[in-house]
Amino acid sequence: MSLTPRFPHFLHGGDYNPDQWLDHPDILERDVLLMEKAHVNAVSVGIFAWATLEPEEGQYNFTWLDEVNSRLKKHGVHMILATPSGARPAWMAEKYPEVLRVNDRFERAHFGGRHNHCPSSPVYRAKVQKIDRALAERYAGDENVILWHISNEFSGDCRCPLCQERFRTWLKDRYGTLDNLNRAWYTGFWSMGYTAWSQIEPPSPRGQMANLSLLLDWRRFSTWQCADFIAMERDTVKAVNPDLPVTANLMESFWDYDYFRLCEELDVVSWDCYPTWTGGDDADLAAYIGMNHDLMRSFRRQPFLLMESTPSLVNWKAVNKLKKPGMHLLSSLQAVAHGSNSVLYFQWRKGRGNAEMFHGAVVSHDGRDDTRVFGDVTEVGKALETLGDGLYASPVQQARVCILYDWSARWATEYSQVGLNGKMDYHGTALAHYRALWKMGIPVDFCDMRESTDLSSYSLVICPQLYLFMNGIEEKLRTFVANGGTLVMTCFSGISDATNLAFLADTPYRLTDVLGVRETELDALSPEECNHAAFTDGEVWRATGLCARPALEGAEVLAIYTDDFYAGLPAVTRNRFGKGEAWYLAARFDDDALLSLYARLSGSLKLPRALETDLPHGVTAHRRGKYVFVENYSGKTVTLSLPGTYEDALKGTDAGDTLTLAPCTVSVLLED
Amino acid sequence: MSLTPRFPHFLHGGDYNPDQWLDHPDILERDVLLMEKAHVNAVSVGIFAWATLEPEEGQYNFTWLDEVNSRLKKHGVHMILATPSGARPAWMAEKYPEVLRVNDRFERAHFGGRHNHCPSSPVYRAKVQKIDRALAERYAGDENVILWHISNEFSGDCRCPLCQERFRTWLKDRYGTLDNLNRAWYTGFWSMGYTAWSQIEPPSPRGQMANLSLLLDWRRFSTWQCADFIAMERDTVKAVNPDLPVTANLMESFWDYDYFRLCEELDVVSWDCYPTWTGGDDADLAAYIGMNHDLMRSFRRQPFLLMESTPSLVNWKAVNKLKKPGMHLLSSLQAVAHGSNSVLYFQWRKGRGNAEMFHGAVVSHDGRDDTRVFGDVTEVGKALETLGDGLYASPVQQARVCILYDWSARWATEYSQVGLNGKMDYHGTALAHYRALWKMGIPVDFCDMRESTDLSSYSLVICPQLYLFMNGIEEKLRTFVANGGTLVMTCFSGISDATNLAFLADTPYRLTDVLGVRETELDALSPEECNHAAFTDGEVWRATGLCARPALEGAEVLAIYTDDFYAGLPAVTRNRFGKGEAWYLAARFDDDALLSLYARLSGSLKLPRALETDLPHGVTAHRRGKYVFVENYSGKTVTLSLPGTYEDALKGTDAGDTLTLAPCTVSVLLED
Amino acid sequence: MSLTPRFPHFLHGGDYNPDQWLDHPDILERDVLLMEKAHVNAVSVGIFAWATLEPEEGQYNFTWLDEVNSRLKKHGVHMILATPSGARPAWMAEKYPEVLRVNDRFERAHFGGRHNHCPSSPVYRAKVQKIDRALAERYAGDENVILWHISNEFSGDCRCPLCQERFRTWLKDRYGTLDNLNRAWYTGFWSMGYTAWSQIEPPSPRGQMANLSLLLDWRRFSTWQCADFIAMERDTVKAVNPDLPVTANLMESFWDYDYFRLCEELDVVSWDCYPTWTGGDDADLAAYIGMNHDLMRSFRRQPFLLMESTPSLVNWKAVNKLKKPGMHLLSSLQAVAHGSNSVLYFQWRKGRGNAEMFHGAVVSHDGRDDTRVFGDVTEVGKALETLGDGLYASPVQQARVCILYDWSARWATEYSQVGLNGKMDYHGTALAHYRALWKMGIPVDFCDMRESTDLSSYSLVICPQLYLFMNGIEEKLRTFVANGGTLVMTCFSGISDATNLAFLADTPYRLTDVLGVRETELDALSPEECNHAAFTDGEVWRATGLCARPALEGAEVLAIYTDDFYAGLPAVTRNRFGKGEAWYLAARFDDDALLSLYARLSGSLKLPRALETDLPHGVTAHRRGKYVFVENYSGKTVTLSLPGTYEDALKGTDAGDTLTLAPCTVSVLLED
Repeated sequence: MSLTPRFPHFLHGGDYNPDQWLDHPDILERDVLLMEKAHVNAVSVGIFAWATLEPEEGQYNFTWLDEVNSRLKKHGVHMILATPSGARPAWMAEKYPEVLRVNDRFERAHFGGRHNHCPSSPVYRAKVQKIDRALAERYAGDENVILWHISNEFSGDCRCPLCQERFRTWLKDRYGTLDNLNRAWYTGFWSMGYTAWSQIEPPSPRGQMANLSLLLDWRRFSTWQCADFIAMERDTVKAVNPDLPVTANLMESFWDYDYFRLCEELDVVSWDCYPTWTGGDDADLAAYIGMNHDLMRSFRRQPFLLMESTPSLVNWKAVNKLKKPGMHLLSSLQAVAHGSNSVLYFQWRKGRGNAEMFHGAVVSHDGRDDTRVFGDVTEVGKALETLGDGLYASPVQQARVCILYDWSARWATEYSQVGLNGKMDYHGTALAHYRALWKMGIPVDFCDMRESTDLSSYSLVICPQLYLFMNGIEEKLRTFVANGGTLVMTCFSGISDATNLAFLADTPYRLTDVLGVRETELDALSPEECNHAAFTDGEVWRATGLCARPALEGAEVLAIYTDDFYAGLPAVTRNRFGKGEAWYLAARFDDDALLSLYARLSGSLKLPRALETDLPHGVTAHRRGKYVFVENYSGKTVTLSLPGTYEDALKGTDAGDTLTLAPCTVSVLLED
Repeated sequence: MSLTPRFPHFLHGGDYNPDQWLDHPDILERDVLLMEKAHVNAVSVGIFAWATLEPEEGQYNFTWLDEVNSRLKKHGVHMILATPSGARPAWMAEKYPEVLRVNDRFERAHFGGRHNHCPSSPVYRAKVQKIDRALAERYAGDENVILWHISNEFSGDCRCPLCQERFRTWLKDRYGTLDNLNRAWYTGFWSMGYTAWSQIEPPSPRGQMANLSLLLDWRRFSTWQCADFIAMERDTVKAVNPDLPVTANLMESFWDYDYFRLCEELDVVSWDCYPTWTGGDDADLAAYIGMNHDLMRSFRRQPFLLMESTPSLVNWKAVNKLKKPGMHLLSSLQAVAHGSNSVLYFQWRKGRGNAEMFHGAVVSHDGRDDTRVFGDVTEVGKALETLGDGLYASPVQQARVCILYDWSARWATEYSQVGLNGKMDYHGTALAHYRALWKMGIPVDFCDMRESTDLSSYSLVICPQLYLFMNGIEEKLRTFVANGGTLVMTCFSGISDATNLAFLADTPYRLTDVLGVRETELDALSPEECNHAAFTDGEVWRATGLCARPALEGAEVLAIYTDDFYAGLPAVTRNRFGKGEAWYLAARFDDDALLSLYARLSGSLKLPRALETDLPHGVTAHRRGKYVFVENYSGKTVTLSLPGTYEDALKGTDAGDTLTLAPCTVSVLLED
Repeated sequence: MSLTPRFPHFLHGGDYNPDQWLDHPDILERDVLLMEKAHVNAVSVGIFAWATLEPEEGQYNFTWLDEVNSRLKKHGVHMILATPSGARPAWMAEKYPEVLRVNDRFERAHFGGRHNHCPSSPVYRAKVQKIDRALAERYAGDENVILWHISNEFSGDCRCPLCQERFRTWLKDRYGTLDNLNRAWYTGFWSMGYTAWSQIEPPSPRGQMANLSLLLDWRRFSTWQCADFIAMERDTVKAVNPDLPVTANLMESFWDYDYFRLCEELDVVSWDCYPTWTGGDDADLAAYIGMNHDLMRSFRRQPFLLMESTPSLVNWKAVNKLKKPGMHLLSSLQAVAHGSNSVLYFQWRKGRGNAEMFHGAVVSHDGRDDTRVFGDVTEVGKALETLGDGLYASPVQQARVCILYDWSARWATEYSQVGLNGKMDYHGTALAHYRALWKMGIPVDFCDMRESTDLSSYSLVICPQLYLFMNGIEEKLRTFVANGGTLVMTCFSGISDATNLAFLADTPYRLTDVLGVRETELDALSPEECNHAAFTDGEVWRATGLCARPALEGAEVLAIYTDDFYAGLPAVTRNRFGKGEAWYLAARFDDDALLSLYARLSGSLKLPRALETDLPHGVTAHRRGKYVFVENYSGKTVTLSLPGTYEDALKGTDAGDTLTLAPCTVSVLLED
């Protein structure tokens, strides 16, 4: 359970950039006093400090960092140490242009911004390794340093000649021969067949954007490039001290890389979480953020860290809103409820200038500690101390529901030209299913389709639009059902294989007997259109966006379409297969329908819930060990009856029979 | 009437890409059996097969095509043979980058996509000629091959140095001297005068986009480039067998090239038709498609081919909808009613991968022939056989109405900076006039302003926003009216000459005496504004978008503006001139107004209609010889009384007095 | 008061391009006759005539211009002579590509368009100087030439290597050392620190766009580049005749350059004014244009020239509308009322072709002088003669209100990432305050933050969102209030310094004691949200967009927030300081609120108004000496009672007690 063995407790703090304040020693002194006051115990240092650490090529300057570290240490603040590879110094860009990225129009970047290095550049890799090693040699043995923070928010890709060559090599490793590649990529289409490896280029609006298999493999290659870069940095710092763990900060609903794959390279998963809370009805947003937390927890099946969050507001949205009173505690503890072992902020102190000068921070330009924000932050620091190591040691409630969520399926779905072009919305479809479970406080895991995936511990597996099948997932699903599991699969599943070649077969591929149904045609609905599914008991579900026309292969019809030229066709079916059952949803159904579906399955499968009581709209519950977090995102005061005896763990009082939650508040109940 | 002398019958079939399935011989065998079952008699082969035909430079492989052809022949399926120039192999792009197009930012394309070759490249032309000749030598003598399909959906242009040089040469041929060009292009404006031919470049957002005459001439040059390329391919294949006709597949509402001019190079006009039918009220869409069909028929004044259409759905629109029951037969016979001698699809069988893997096809990935789509296709195949050669030999009803529709006028209008910038909508204005006639089942021809244009056979000529006059069209219109014709001209006509220089005269140029009116100012209305024209009999027309202020020069005022500062000015006028009359519409009037106008003219001019009866909303009728197609796009069941005795040509029964049409259905009536 | 000493009278006329008509001598002859008829007395010649003046390198041709000038002179039409640098000839672009601009993607322009020369190019500068000198030598002594018109509508910038180098030099001059620059630009952020001047590049989406200080300094540098270019042209022509004044035509709400700074280089300010009048309720538009006029007047604290306006319509908006009857006189005299000493048009005669062929002009393609437009123009010419030199010599009413409007503050605000990203709308906020005063006919000056700014003559100074403070403006404001002035300051003021570094202090910087309040947090509201401020007397103001949370430091609370989590916090405060008072508006308030605010202050400060009477909605008044312009933009007929005895200066009649104005009309009252 401990992600940071040198300091096995909840972390509270955030990004700290003393390198921007070296000409203000008074401020550096004052920072640590304020940190103590705010109950901060850990800060991330050096994230973009390369130009300060190595002001000239090969000339390192660690003095300032030594001083920062010893000052922090004196005040009980631990250091998460970053490698500085997220942004390179100007001298490096000037001397070695190859360190800069080439965009999808084959244009080399000029110096500027961040996160835009070439991951293949031997020069860049050598420079990164050298400074990483120097940092490790100096700080990896220091007990005050508790975690490596590799680079920052990896994203994007490079199309320079070096990266192109690595892409070709990666393809050779994957396909062996051009014949295999041509077949896998279906290059017979539009005379695309390659006759030399050198003809292959990355996707580009100036070149090839039509080949969906190329697009898909480019994303896999980009994932591999990033994983390889992380591994290089990780191996460099761990060569000095293998026991100091390594993380990298991830992002929400991230598209560029397969995070399941990437997290194989990390010891600790962490992420940066920036919702736009309104203080009104934030239920949908909270479910969306909850899904991101649960994904982070699922990547390595362990607690994670909330590496960045704002103590007040951000500065890069169209409308940047302050957090309403209570929201900071609520949103911070949401992360903890889902398995975070930290609440960390970007950032400690607002910078004076440049792009993020108005991003929220614990301390603002006025340097005051009598602000609303400083108070909110201090409250969170105290709350984490109050909940303490009892909670820290408690894992989140074991899930018996799994949603299959896979980056290859997502990429292929959203690249595909079909149905609702550009709005096939893989992530949103998974979220719709997740949201129904979230509303009931039912814990959920996510799995992807890697070979290691094991579904045997689940009672319910959900496949929302699992368009692409790979690594024999159809066999795993068949076995899962045969052994007694319940499968829910939606339309547009099992259509294409690992390289996005359509199966020449009935679909969902090799599961038509398990589901007792096959899909014949997929219709798309305009935004103003809908259809309906009528159950025999009179219940009616609303369908929008996508409606498939299925043909029965033995399933029981639970509901039929009522409208248009598919009136009378099956819309929801269930099939007994082996010891289990498989549900098929022919259409994209709305939230009420999915809530009804999972309420029914929750009852029949006796799925565990965080709190066995009715949760009002906008309220959810999550459990870690004996701690139950009841969170109110409804924007209203709500009341619910408690199904047992609890202590209010933050107040230390008896929680009573009835829990009343003001808007934007959370209650942590400790089970007797 | 026969476009394909070797097989003088309706063609049914579509694009067939066996080159994508060479590793599935079972599928190739099954294809021809399924074709027979679907009443398919012709397929287009080889459209993007260059990489398969010439896998290495100079190494041709025709074996597979021989086998395909003989297999097709065995099953009574004829071959439309494509030249493969629509997409070049990767080896060619790699070895000869000059074959790739340069875009309007002067960037050379990388390999990828299709339809992006340079039309000037000597290498490309040589390679195309070589493979075209080889194909012709092998197949042009084969009786199973019935038509050449040149390249695919020509579009766009190239700005490489070679194309620039050809542009300059083309301009020299056109203008002789720079002085002439400078005058014609009005380069005195903004110091644009050229003092050397080498200074002239194509339009580019990085260079010159302001000169409207340059923009216009660039479109004419692009037309010439494409025509020249087509001619090269045509001459190459016809050098082997001059009797095998040649087509190229065109597109809807196409902007890039002047299709009247381009079709001079073709034996047969064909086009690719992809409406998004909803199955609801599709009346406006059907009229829009009808206009495209009638344009295709007008280009060479002969029947045309429907070269591509979807048997189910497409995959490249925002919402890709299935065809409702009945819609496939209705939309297929719409083409035939307007003069098509074929119903052909893209495509026979869905590809397994790549950009169009989900485009509708006769056979889907599951390979089944028990699908709804396969049934719909078979029904069309049977219908064409039933209607048979009697219909095939029948020309469409002779039109006495002509709409002047000219690409130069269109380009100049839509490039012009005036009135409703970017929404001058030449095509839409022509369509509005066409639509009124379509609703009454009145046949319409289109003419452009080429020197060959002859208006003498028409009773009514309509000039919707004929902004640009050239080749003496004003004289033709004057003569037409003087000789007894009726002219309808709208505001914004006769403003500029062939190179887009404004006439220094009253407008419409040299027609103010014919119309009895001149235009003094053109006002543009915001979307929320409108004006009205009131007739003495109380009828009121609604005007939106454009309202001109005319001054009378002798015309009779039929209606006056009622609103704003043009209240009381003439809005609709009529002038007797010679034996005819000329109407002037000062504003852009709405659909009801135009319907009223043409109902009145239809009565006074006794214009022929396909069916002399009232057609309900959404229903239209077209006639070929003794066959009358009554088409229902209203989305509702409609009934109409028949003005004569007819046989239902598809059912072989007596049609009775009253025709009832379900939604999305068509009835083919055979006149006794 | 005389901007054109050689002809010290109102100018009436506009751009005249005889160089486009040299092959139509009849038209050139007719032009001057028509000018006389239209009461035109001045035209601007040669604006884009370079290719005609220097058809080949070094070969000048002035003959045509001599003839034009003498023809004009004969008919009493004076010449404003343009330098031709707004567009270069094709031969120059071909021979010296360096004269063409490089865009923000570092791409060199190709020949085309206008206003796209490189301002650094030594070749371009030499060519410009040479032709300017030649023009000056030939015409600067001619009494018929009354003003130099330098180039045309300067805008934009160039990023070529030469400009980059000048940027670096400019930065060296400004900052001395890289250390200073790094500190001022806060380059410690994201490792942006420069270690060599050569590393600095202009902002570019391909490089650095994140550094807000770089963005700000780039705008200042661009201003300097343009000022330097203007100075070069000015000095060149004035070297020949120092007495002939120089102007350059500016544009509305212009972003690229600091016009206060730029106008230091000019003798005369002039601008091009192109509102889209609807003839309906144009009140907001008129206030917006009025603010632009007052800015132009404020740049050099002297009358200005309306250099371009349309006599009818423009051709480059989405909907190009004709002017309603009356609107031409009204909008022309609006300029005069605000201090213009001219009404000039673009253009005299419509060109035959090219981009602006349909831009409104006095004479259209038909060459007629019996048009509505020609009549409108003639009416304005007569009106200016009627009002005559009495008005010409009259300055506009002295303002006692000043709005601080500064380009540095504007750039920094609109670049800033904060609150309503991209909608911080500096200009619109200033306009909202201006509009309230405009509605009451209160004259307003604008000042910026240059060192020369002197606020001592004002009673009321308004700082709308004065985010950036520089040159000690805070001290000037403190002194202003201490000495008895009234200050109105809004939220988001005094946040950052001259290089956009946040003050490390309470804000508004060094004014919290003057205002008696400090700002703690700034919240942004979504478009559908609002808050309210309640006064003790029951008045309620509506706030949208931005709401700050202030803390009191001694001010009197006039109104408190009523809603949300800032309910009860101060929303409007007032503080006595020294002999004056300082108001603070915590939120962005709507128009009614600002009207109430300034009505109150107008009363208490006894601010002068053009006409001491209630003005109905859409009506405003402006005063020059004894002339009061009452303008009706309401779209309706309005009546107002007159507070004194006036003559109707246009009609020469007694104005009576009550003034009735039809829609789109203006009355000029001459005080007895």
